[in-house]
Amino acid sequence: MTEQTQQFASDNYSGICPEAWAAMDKANQGHERAYGDDQWTAKAADHFRKLFETDCEVFFAFNGTAANSLALSSLCQSYHSVICSETAHVETDECGAPEFFSNGSKLLTARSENGKLTPESIREVALKRQDIHYPKPRVVTITQATEVGSVYRPEELKAISDTCKELGLNLHMDGARFSNACAFLGCTPAELTWKAGIDVLCFGGTKNGMAVGEAILFFNHKLAEDFDYRCKQAGQLASKMRFLSAPWVGLLEDGAWLRHAQHANHCAQLLSGLVADIPAVQLMFPVEANGVFLQMPEPALEALRDKGWRFYTFIGSGGARFMCSWDTDEARVRELAADIRAVTLG
Amino acid sequence: MTEQTQQFASDNYSGICPEAWAAMDKANQGHERAYGDDQWTAKAADHFRKLFETDCEVFFAFNGTAANSLALSSLCQSYHSVICSETAHVETDECGAPEFFSNGSKLLTARSENGKLTPESIREVALKRQDIHYPKPRVVTITQATEVGSVYRPEELKAISDTCKELGLNLHMDGARFSNACAFLGCTPAELTWKAGIDVLCFGGTKNGMAVGEAILFFNHKLAEDFDYRCKQAGQLASKMRFLSAPWVGLLEDGAWLRHAQHANHCAQLLSGLVADIPAVQLMFPVEANGVFLQMPEPALEALRDKGWRFYTFIGSGGARFMCSWDTDEARVRELAADIRAVTLG
Amino acid sequence: MTEQTQQFASDNYSGICPEAWAAMDKANQGHERAYGDDQWTAKAADHFRKLFETDCEVFFAFNGTAANSLALSSLCQSYHSVICSETAHVETDECGAPEFFSNGSKLLTARSENGKLTPESIREVALKRQDIHYPKPRVVTITQATEVGSVYRPEELKAISDTCKELGLNLHMDGARFSNACAFLGCTPAELTWKAGIDVLCFGGTKNGMAVGEAILFFNHKLAEDFDYRCKQAGQLASKMRFLSAPWVGLLEDGAWLRHAQHANHCAQLLSGLVADIPAVQLMFPVEANGVFLQMPEPALEALRDKGWRFYTFIGSGGARFMCSWDTDEARVRELAADIRAVTLG
Amino acid sequence: MTEQTQQFASDNYSGICPEAWAAMDKANQGHERAYGDDQWTAKAADHFRKLFETDCEVFFAFNGTAANSLALSSLCQSYHSVICSETAHVETDECGAPEFFSNGSKLLTARSENGKLTPESIREVALKRQDIHYPKPRVVTITQATEVGSVYRPEELKAISDTCKELGLNLHMDGARFSNACAFLGCTPAELTWKAGIDVLCFGGTKNGMAVGEAILFFNHKLAEDFDYRCKQAGQLASKMRFLSAPWVGLLEDGAWLRHAQHANHCAQLLSGLVADIPAVQLMFPVEANGVFLQMPEPALEALRDKGWRFYTFIGSGGARFMCSWDTDEARVRELAADIRAVTLG
Repeated sequence: MTEQTQQFASDNYSGICPEAWAAMDKANQGHERAYGDDQWTAKAADHFRKLFETDCEVFFAFNGTAANSLALSSLCQSYHSVICSETAHVETDECGAPEFFSNGSKLLTARSENGKLTPESIREVALKRQDIHYPKPRVVTITQATEVGSVYRPEELKAISDTCKELGLNLHMDGARFSNACAFLGCTPAELTWKAGIDVLCFGGTKNGMAVGEAILFFNHKLAEDFDYRCKQAGQLASKMRFLSAPWVGLLEDGAWLRHAQHANHCAQLLSGLVADIPAVQLMFPVEANGVFLQMPEPALEALRDKGWRFYTFIGSGGARFMCSWDTDEARVRELAADIRAVTLG
Repeated sequence: MTEQTQQFASDNYSGICPEAWAAMDKANQGHERAYGDDQWTAKAADHFRKLFETDCEVFFAFNGTAANSLALSSLCQSYHSVICSETAHVETDECGAPEFFSNGSKLLTARSENGKLTPESIREVALKRQDIHYPKPRVVTITQATEVGSVYRPEELKAISDTCKELGLNLHMDGARFSNACAFLGCTPAELTWKAGIDVLCFGGTKNGMAVGEAILFFNHKLAEDFDYRCKQAGQLASKMRFLSAPWVGLLEDGAWLRHAQHANHCAQLLSGLVADIPAVQLMFPVEANGVFLQMPEPALEALRDKGWRFYTFIGSGGARFMCSWDTDEARVRELAADIRAVTLG
Repeated sequence: MTEQTQQFASDNYSGICPEAWAAMDKANQGHERAYGDDQWTAKAADHFRKLFETDCEVFFAFNGTAANSLALSSLCQSYHSVICSETAHVETDECGAPEFFSNGSKLLTARSENGKLTPESIREVALKRQDIHYPKPRVVTITQATEVGSVYRPEELKAISDTCKELGLNLHMDGARFSNACAFLGCTPAELTWKAGIDVLCFGGTKNGMAVGEAILFFNHKLAEDFDYRCKQAGQLASKMRFLSAPWVGLLEDGAWLRHAQHANHCAQLLSGLVADIPAVQLMFPVEANGVFLQMPEPALEALRDKGWRFYTFIGSGGARFMCSWDTDEARVRELAADIRAVTLG
Repeated sequence: MTEQTQQFASDNYSGICPEAWAAMDKANQGHERAYGDDQWTAKAADHFRKLFETDCEVFFAFNGTAANSLALSSLCQSYHSVICSETAHVETDECGAPEFFSNGSKLLTARSENGKLTPESIREVALKRQDIHYPKPRVVTITQATEVGSVYRPEELKAISDTCKELGLNLHMDGARFSNACAFLGCTPAELTWKAGIDVLCFGGTKNGMAVGEAILFFNHKLAEDFDYRCKQAGQLASKMRFLSAPWVGLLEDGAWLRHAQHANHCAQLLSGLVADIPAVQLMFPVEANGVFLQMPEPALEALRDKGWRFYTFIGSGGARFMCSWDTDEARVRELAADIRAVTLG
């Protein structure tokens, strides 16, 4: 089996979607000014402002590691701390990038329920220490959809942002799978961000069909001051920027960003539905976005691997993550479900 | 005039070359493992090792800012200093990126001749201060081809690396236009790097027809220790890495990297030849790579701009930089030359 | 009550001991070269080498925050991680200093028993993740005596350093109360450091009678390379260095460092002995150094405070820390013990 | 000759003045709260507020390297730049500390006259580059008295601060020898700082008779936000803070800070007067503070050294720096002058 066979290990395994590809092709005509001073970058930024129904500040970065780390470092100083959930990607899978970009800001993990922070868990961490010997909490970061596939409701976001305001904390959203959250809730991007009190959103493009690139949207203009310099210094300003921005035009102009997310979510629902009646398989988290987390016996996982399936099992003993993406083939979902049934019933 | 008309302001104004595009297209089939664990990345690395005739360590980064800054930070600590020429891009155009990535390493500028450092100018700076109150020199960085279009000969490189060895300095090469240097000298990549004592090369892809991406080649294996972690933490590990590495395969497998550089160099020679006899126009630096630096009266520059030409004039009063790229059209070069003649003779 | 009354909140509440004071006075005669190029600094370094029976590299820093952070940053890079106990001072009370000095190294907390790491708990954390998305473990730091007053035995240190060697980890000791550990065990400084496999020790002076200043001792010479530059850049090189080094001469030349620690330890034993029979009071950790950690009912703690006693209660509900120092008066210990008895029996 | 003989190499060669010593002695009675929560620190801060006739924010750091670097890093972000003179101590003698503390802020050197920046030279650098590829100027730092012994007049400071305001730059003063400037001009501290538009002053204590310690005074309260956390994280919060603050009480309560500076200035005047008529000796800069910079033939310098005199010659070929301090003995000044006469007339 080559890796070109569709897998469910990560939504990063998929390629470039047709809309993004076509836009890159179109952008690849003739010469364009460099460093974002081009028509595609202007167009993409306008699309974001239209989609979010507000005059936000828009920046582009190469990947999510950088987008989130740069955004967080613009929200606090090195002696401040960032409150996140124990499963937050910035805490568990960025090799200390937030600490590096911010020159030392400490991440403080708070209790989460189904991967989601709550006003209570934020308050608990924010108020635990008030002395100078501990970094002062200054930012909360939440992931939408979360790392375990759950989705914050608008009212949950509002309650969190109210708590943040009360405690003097800025609020950042890691939106690597923001599209999937919008698709699940049927909410507008505005409803899930600035209308709910989010200061900054990192909107993921890579997982939703781009080759490379994330957008950083500041709804709080003051926090965006000189952010372009920050990006440049940190190696995140593309010279041929049009190839980062044009794909966004492709994704945004006809709603492909949402369509793809809907498809991925649909596949996740399909998978979870197909295995719902298998006694040996338990759903670990509600399926709300494009991921399905299944608990099953270790020998079953081993058998699945033997059949050529690739997936992550970092969620604890017996837990397996299956991610769907914009290009997931329903037939492959059914094959996977059948194999899960086979290895667990066998 | 739209920017899609060919310009000479920067070799970053050009798009993606056919070979890189075709490789991306090919790579965009089905699923691939993420984070560099894919067949394209392995293939690209192998191509580099073959091209450089040595078992070097190969890494990929999104842009030159990051590639050079990461490489430099792996060669020294924050309390060390980096010797570079006064015109070095890392000193003049990276918004403090080397200082940021290294957490404070100071850049010390040395005298240069036609943009090139010499053993003497390196020695002068390296030996100026030996006390603890000044950052200890630890790295020399040279740009090949230089920012003013000149090219280091193998024997010049050898003399510099000998000096570095004597003084305990690591030697880094910023090769944003390394291809153009190879094309000009007719030397092999090996002759201009490890055979001449270079420890690390940042090989530029963007200026030579890629959408995004540079390669970092360590000839000194020890210096590459854990460099993959460094890239990850600094936001330079692409999840869909194949789209950074596949274009390299396209460029390297049939020699397009060199062909394109030869074309760009040829256009620069053409331009400089066409204006050589204009009395009001003086060549500022020898034309060895793809840039032509012309001194001409300020009103002439103004008149050129009025005709719609775009170019940089950062080299001092009256100096204009014209850059050719892989896709430069000879007809446009002739148009430019004719206009230069017109505005200066007018 | 003024604060000049003896308290048990911190061993930092005490002043300068007579031996340190006399040495400062002596050093304050005439002129001396600056920045450590003076006779006192040389003398202090020699005393350390004699005391530790080895030719170690000796540096001086202003405080423990800096000494430990600088030492740790010399043992790893920003993308590496540092394994420490959950109660380690570097994790809980340095406001992110280790992350700041190292430009982002993450601290990973391991399980501890009575504040002490074990080979098993180190192994558990070091081997948990081996992928590039998580900072690579590179250093273990242990505190001797620990933050809860326990002391590592030579064989425990040896077992830890063996584990470190096996796993490729450097081993650092935070010795803010190293003297108290030596005093408790009756071991030589050599036995508790390099003979047991410690690479670097931060030897605390402030808590043992100095005004300001810690010593950093590298037993592994290679790790000390250019450490003097690191100190200078980080604002830890004193111009009038003699006033940091001379007190060490005072402490080391006639054994005052050990005598003072013995006294502080003795007072802690006295206190714990005097309250041992009170039913409402439980000892939380074995009393091995100069701290006594007592569990007692919250109203009792409140009553103690009302009587004017100051102490920390960060160890969990109902836990109070009482620290003895070089100048603790036995009469005050007895007063405290009597008051504890009164408030708990009352 | 031991170093205890008075020398003129640095004002750091002197010891602790009687007033500072007496205050330390007084502070060394009984117990005090740690980390600045003590009576001496409160008293010292009050003395500063009274002396500066304003409610400024007062912080203490161990040395000038840290005080200046921390202050600068609170005035800008890593992608900003700091304008300073070519001879500024932060540029020439701090081993990259400002770059380290700020995580990469670049220092841009401006032309100076007698070591002093001017509105024109600041404007020149601040307006040279306005693009994103170069760090954005955000701070100006001036040294009062300068590194070559000259002193800014109130109207010069006012002109500089007006320029800063116009250009959006914060204004920092490195006052390692601020006392000497006050003594020379007969101005009040207020006149030379906030009344002239200074945002932050680092007031040097070490060179004026303290063992260790500088004060950081923010006249612009907003810039001081969370500065206490910054100090703590950067290893600049003393546990036994009283020993950093009490000496300030000693210096400030009866005017010793000014008296000592007057004496040092007087000795410098004496020296320059005594050698004024020697043909082979030229004064390099006006003598306004406690330093005398003399140009004389290299053999004369050599002969001086042979006579046991120590001094720095970093100012260029033939230039020697002689620094007077609070404890300089006039007899030694006369001896030095006589020897200079002897070696140059010889």
